[in-house]
Amino acid sequence: MSETVSPAYASLYADIQRFHARQMHLLDSGDAEAWAATFTEDGLFAPPSLPEPVRGRVALAEGVRSAHAALAADGEVRRHLLTTAAVEDPGPDGSVRVRSYVQVVATRRDEAPRLLLMCVCDDVLVVEDGRWRVHERYVSRDDRP
Amino acid sequence: MSETVSPAYASLYADIQRFHARQMHLLDSGDAEAWAATFTEDGLFAPPSLPEPVRGRVALAEGVRSAHAALAADGEVRRHLLTTAAVEDPGPDGSVRVRSYVQVVATRRDEAPRLLLMCVCDDVLVVEDGRWRVHERYVSRDDRP
Amino acid sequence: MSETVSPAYASLYADIQRFHARQMHLLDSGDAEAWAATFTEDGLFAPPSLPEPVRGRVALAEGVRSAHAALAADGEVRRHLLTTAAVEDPGPDGSVRVRSYVQVVATRRDEAPRLLLMCVCDDVLVVEDGRWRVHERYVSRDDRP
Repeated sequence: MSETVSPAYASLYADIQRFHARQMHLLDSGDAEAWAATFTEDGLFAPPSLPEPVRGRVALAEGVRSAHAALAADGEVRRHLLTTAAVEDPGPDGSVRVRSYVQVVATRRDEAPRLLLMCVCDDVLVVEDGRWRVHERYVSRDDRP
Repeated sequence: MSETVSPAYASLYADIQRFHARQMHLLDSGDAEAWAATFTEDGLFAPPSLPEPVRGRVALAEGVRSAHAALAADGEVRRHLLTTAAVEDPGPDGSVRVRSYVQVVATRRDEAPRLLLMCVCDDVLVVEDGRWRVHERYVSRDDRP
Repeated sequence: MSETVSPAYASLYADIQRFHARQMHLLDSGDAEAWAATFTEDGLFAPPSLPEPVRGRVALAEGVRSAHAALAADGEVRRHLLTTAAVEDPGPDGSVRVRSYVQVVATRRDEAPRLLLMCVCDDVLVVEDGRWRVHERYVSRDDRP
């Protein structure tokens, strides 16, 4: 099975899984600046909740900051569970495409957690300053056309 | 910790995780032929919803095609989230056993997603024509004996 | 992208993912002794359901044994789905910290599965007798302060 032994792909896979996990943890803890820094300077985030994509770290951080403040005021915790990730081989320019499933789980104190959203996340990741970053992220919701 | 550094296992693990993710994406998008091709020609799929296992790509594809058409007509999207996968070392014949947990999430337009099924998936995977394929898959549902 | 090719990290990541998956499978099948053996002899488990942490394999096994017996008598199956795991680089002493999200799903016969708990799991893992084991585990629930 030598054809299945690719240390380069294994490293890519592990590295990107760690990247994604850390990124979701930053998002859920409301660490807006650190989360925004996981995007490239001109990174694009097209969430299903907005009519236009958000572009750039300043706007990205502001979006998370205000959303997290509203949730905190409301006593709700959100978790983004990223699973079932197909990490593809790098393209000619070194960028890597990843399609994953993201469950958004919302929990209020003393209540059962609710599965709020089922999303598909399509990323284009690049290495910048020695770290993986999101260059483009497109997210769709299963409850929307 | 040299005992924990096994590039061969790491490659196997990453490769199979990608295989599983792509396979679930094909299933959920209703790409019946491509999904069936992720099984060996005589691949066996024993789902909990049928009294007898399905065997062979033609029957596998037909099952997904009709199920997906019914869901589409009904306006429902399904996702298979494969997590918590124990990928074992290859056996003497090179086959690999994987036990994983699969959540099936169903979503209708403008409704909250529902956790439809909680399943355990036991796979026997083999390499055929240079690709991982399912030789046998046994799925059980937690709501059934 | 040579900076992202680290066979040592990839091996660590794959090894720990397998460790965690097997450990959750043991827990959910009620294999109390085998589950307790995935902790170090003096392993600490601080679950959110108890006022004090549990320490040591005897106490750990007893906790799982009684909990599983109660669930079985009640006809309920529980699954612990560990996802979104940030496996960090080993510290100077070789221990590895992992933060992950754990969904606890409960299912009764002929009923839909319920998302019972949304937890964050913080582990300190060490290699003992050639195997990964939990030295310390702290779990928090999103529905509790």
